[in-house]
Amino acid sequence: MNDYHRFSIQAVLRYHVWTPGWLLLNVAASRCAGQQVTNENVSSREGGGLVEQTAPDGLTRFHAMNVAEGECEVTYRAEVVRSVSDFADSWEPREASLVELPPAVARYLYPSRYCESDKLVRFAAKEFGALCPGHSRVVAICNWIHEQIDYQPGATNEHSSAADCLVFRAGVCRDFAHLGIAFCRALGIPARYGSSYAHGLPYPDFHAFFEVWLGDRWWYYDATRLAPQAGFILIGTGHDAADNSVATMSQGVQFVSADLRVEKVSPGNLDYTTSPIAFD
Amino acid sequence: MNDYHRFSIQAVLRYHVWTPGWLLLNVAASRCAGQQVTNENVSSREGGGLVEQTAPDGLTRFHAMNVAEGECEVTYRAEVVRSVSDFADSWEPREASLVELPPAVARYLYPSRYCESDKLVRFAAKEFGALCPGHSRVVAICNWIHEQIDYQPGATNEHSSAADCLVFRAGVCRDFAHLGIAFCRALGIPARYGSSYAHGLPYPDFHAFFEVWLGDRWWYYDATRLAPQAGFILIGTGHDAADNSVATMSQGVQFVSADLRVEKVSPGNLDYTTSPIAFD
Amino acid sequence: MNDYHRFSIQAVLRYHVWTPGWLLLNVAASRCAGQQVTNENVSSREGGGLVEQTAPDGLTRFHAMNVAEGECEVTYRAEVVRSVSDFADSWEPREASLVELPPAVARYLYPSRYCESDKLVRFAAKEFGALCPGHSRVVAICNWIHEQIDYQPGATNEHSSAADCLVFRAGVCRDFAHLGIAFCRALGIPARYGSSYAHGLPYPDFHAFFEVWLGDRWWYYDATRLAPQAGFILIGTGHDAADNSVATMSQGVQFVSADLRVEKVSPGNLDYTTSPIAFD
Amino acid sequence: MNDYHRFSIQAVLRYHVWTPGWLLLNVAASRCAGQQVTNENVSSREGGGLVEQTAPDGLTRFHAMNVAEGECEVTYRAEVVRSVSDFADSWEPREASLVELPPAVARYLYPSRYCESDKLVRFAAKEFGALCPGHSRVVAICNWIHEQIDYQPGATNEHSSAADCLVFRAGVCRDFAHLGIAFCRALGIPARYGSSYAHGLPYPDFHAFFEVWLGDRWWYYDATRLAPQAGFILIGTGHDAADNSVATMSQGVQFVSADLRVEKVSPGNLDYTTSPIAFD
Repeated sequence: MNDYHRFSIQAVLRYHVWTPGWLLLNVAASRCAGQQVTNENVSSREGGGLVEQTAPDGLTRFHAMNVAEGECEVTYRAEVVRSVSDFADSWEPREASLVELPPAVARYLYPSRYCESDKLVRFAAKEFGALCPGHSRVVAICNWIHEQIDYQPGATNEHSSAADCLVFRAGVCRDFAHLGIAFCRALGIPARYGSSYAHGLPYPDFHAFFEVWLGDRWWYYDATRLAPQAGFILIGTGHDAADNSVATMSQGVQFVSADLRVEKVSPGNLDYTTSPIAFD
Repeated sequence: MNDYHRFSIQAVLRYHVWTPGWLLLNVAASRCAGQQVTNENVSSREGGGLVEQTAPDGLTRFHAMNVAEGECEVTYRAEVVRSVSDFADSWEPREASLVELPPAVARYLYPSRYCESDKLVRFAAKEFGALCPGHSRVVAICNWIHEQIDYQPGATNEHSSAADCLVFRAGVCRDFAHLGIAFCRALGIPARYGSSYAHGLPYPDFHAFFEVWLGDRWWYYDATRLAPQAGFILIGTGHDAADNSVATMSQGVQFVSADLRVEKVSPGNLDYTTSPIAFD
Repeated sequence: MNDYHRFSIQAVLRYHVWTPGWLLLNVAASRCAGQQVTNENVSSREGGGLVEQTAPDGLTRFHAMNVAEGECEVTYRAEVVRSVSDFADSWEPREASLVELPPAVARYLYPSRYCESDKLVRFAAKEFGALCPGHSRVVAICNWIHEQIDYQPGATNEHSSAADCLVFRAGVCRDFAHLGIAFCRALGIPARYGSSYAHGLPYPDFHAFFEVWLGDRWWYYDATRLAPQAGFILIGTGHDAADNSVATMSQGVQFVSADLRVEKVSPGNLDYTTSPIAFD
Repeated sequence: MNDYHRFSIQAVLRYHVWTPGWLLLNVAASRCAGQQVTNENVSSREGGGLVEQTAPDGLTRFHAMNVAEGECEVTYRAEVVRSVSDFADSWEPREASLVELPPAVARYLYPSRYCESDKLVRFAAKEFGALCPGHSRVVAICNWIHEQIDYQPGATNEHSSAADCLVFRAGVCRDFAHLGIAFCRALGIPARYGSSYAHGLPYPDFHAFFEVWLGDRWWYYDATRLAPQAGFILIGTGHDAADNSVATMSQGVQFVSADLRVEKVSPGNLDYTTSPIAFD
């Protein structure tokens, strides 16, 4: 099954600069397979130059800029056409064995800043170790997170990790993704973080989900179930929120506000599914 | 200045396998610039097949294998010729500005599993923020670590991070590297982990140091000062010990012992220096 | 030298009760030696009964109450006369040896929730171990904290500990007290937490400091230097903020606001000193 | 039901003293209600004086001593008669309401070093919040711990807490006790740590369990189920292992070994029960 959806995106980000420094933004829609980006514009109200860079995996684009003392406002606008390739009905992706993993995938087996899979090996084995490997096991992980963890803004902060989320039993989309990733890696399944715009969120914000390597490709999973996955517009992927944060900044640069608008331009409703999807 | 040194390496690693699973080894000398690897052999006593993979950056080679219940012994042997390119006397590498960083380097600005640079921004700014940027600032970081942290096996464990090391004021080479990396990233300087064999260690073991991006290349730094840097034989680089551990294994595989031998075959002594060196 | 100061205190605390439960308040001025409490009144606007309890050490009074769904407002009012006994000029209190510590004091040698002195033994030994034991060493600890840690509301939260404060190099009065306590205990010096009202704070709020056992009594120390110690009105003492929090509440009770007023009724200015004082 | 059991205890503790300092031992059987201690002897092979102190609650006795450089061996011997008062068959102790708690009990509602009940409020509420308050709820907590956490020496260390144990899903008796305590306090039930000798352990060692305040007294609970509770000889109680560690020592004193012998002198077998018991 293939669907096409067209979205219009706008993000306005404001910072206060106490000490001249730099900003590294991660807000541009990915020019990945299945996602066509047009009419794109990134600009700074103060006129500072933005240098675009693409990460080595070709998926994530960054915009780096030097910032002067005072206010700083950056606006991103684009139109994105997404094609969505659903699971074939009759095929269930399996977990790949370690020796057949491409090296660029194998590195997503390791623990990362916010996904301490090294600490969760026993936890994951006890909860999910006996389940049949493959898609259904990852679904069981998503169900577990959805049922056991409260979606609760304010319960965690920017330093919180998967293990913290597990102890507090609460978090936001970023924590849900971290926990899903950590469980998968602890079981030997490559998993990575996805940051995105999302159509249909209860309130306009950046969204986070996670990707799992099954069969021979990455599939989307989202334990929050806050929005239809067909309405995710990928910004980038990485180990976790550490290399996918909306902005990394030098000391003395302070976040002020972000205003997002994600509109569906093409007619029709998004199919609301929490099933994993892949984009090709 | 250029030196050439020839080394003979042997590592014998033993594991006990309680539950059939997999091993992902990171023990082969890197085929990086400045390092020529010959007469290499990796073999399992039990005859299991080892699949070699090279990480996307071309620096790190992994050997993956499935392991059956019982004992498992893997032996790695190689000869390595190292060329060492020292700092030109009259040139001091500077810190690159964010906008001129290659994307493959920029990702080493982010916090990782054992290097929580996000938590150490204020700490690094207070201790090193006012120092002149560049090589001398990284040397100041190494000096600080060498003076403030005790080299103390047993004080930390495999889950310990840079922040733990800072609180305990003790650690081993891996912790010293993590702390150096975390301080650099907190200051906006790309830094990554290096795992290696090392000639001249007080006792034969794997070694860890860190690399810092200055000017337009990576330079070696080692706050432990346990061995001459000209005797390091690079195995691989990564974010931290998470993606450079000697072995990652499935649950039910247990480390038993590692026996290492690193011999200098070419005549002459290594120049003992703690100055950074680069390999080309 | 003896001084007497008279203060008038009022605290209005508001909570929202989502689920009927309980509140345990720790807001009454201590009826300790050197502190005379008169015209005291604790009452709930909603009319709920408040049960007063005094901790076994006789210093801290709690008020327990059951709370019904809806708003809850408690008001505390009192007048307090404080006498202040300063250090004799010619006498410097020494550190007591372990074998002469009263048992009720020895328990303040142990680590507690927010003061992980067990983790900081090496840190404290390296920074303060070589200093001459006694009052001057505790002053050195206060100076170190005042110089190394930024007073920065928002940098820590209610779960943050002394080790966190050390890593972040920032905190509020509660964190400053926790760090001072942890260093002292790590050196074998009994130390405990003091919660108080304070006259002369830059903004009206509850305050925290710490007490150290030197010679044969507890002395006040405050590394924040935000207000004259002669204007502290003791509420209670304990291991740390865990048993001195203004309010402990059942799940479903939420803090809304606290309005404090601390006025000096007697004439004259408080002697602004950061020297330790004891009350007798 | 009342039983009397007579035990003979011997503990030999050895330390190496690198730097002259002090030792604070917590090894003497408690002279608590229901426990009669006779023929007691505490002595140091090196002849150092041991100062006995009793904690303010009258339950725990400490022995403090100064130690000189070199070896240090302390031997404790005693005979203990225990009377055991079981639950009346027809009575189930209930949870006390906050306002009726004695102040000396209320302080065991607060989080402590190794029992971060402040972090586990939501966890405890989700798992046990809906259960009927009282003895059966505490039994449910013990069952949960026994089923979910592996008894695994080496999985945790002396700095590990209840939250760590929950993440690692493994620990030893001390961690099982910490987790039970943390869950109870998070639910508003006073709970404290008990250290003991225990007859019938798989291997001779000190043991840890926890006590819960139900009705009007403390009851024993032990989620490890490693030994019959009727064979526990109480050493002391406290907030957690922080104030009940076998030994607290100054820096430069190192634990070497502990040899324990706990023999049942009176005839008959201990009734193996994991039901809570109280001593009177």
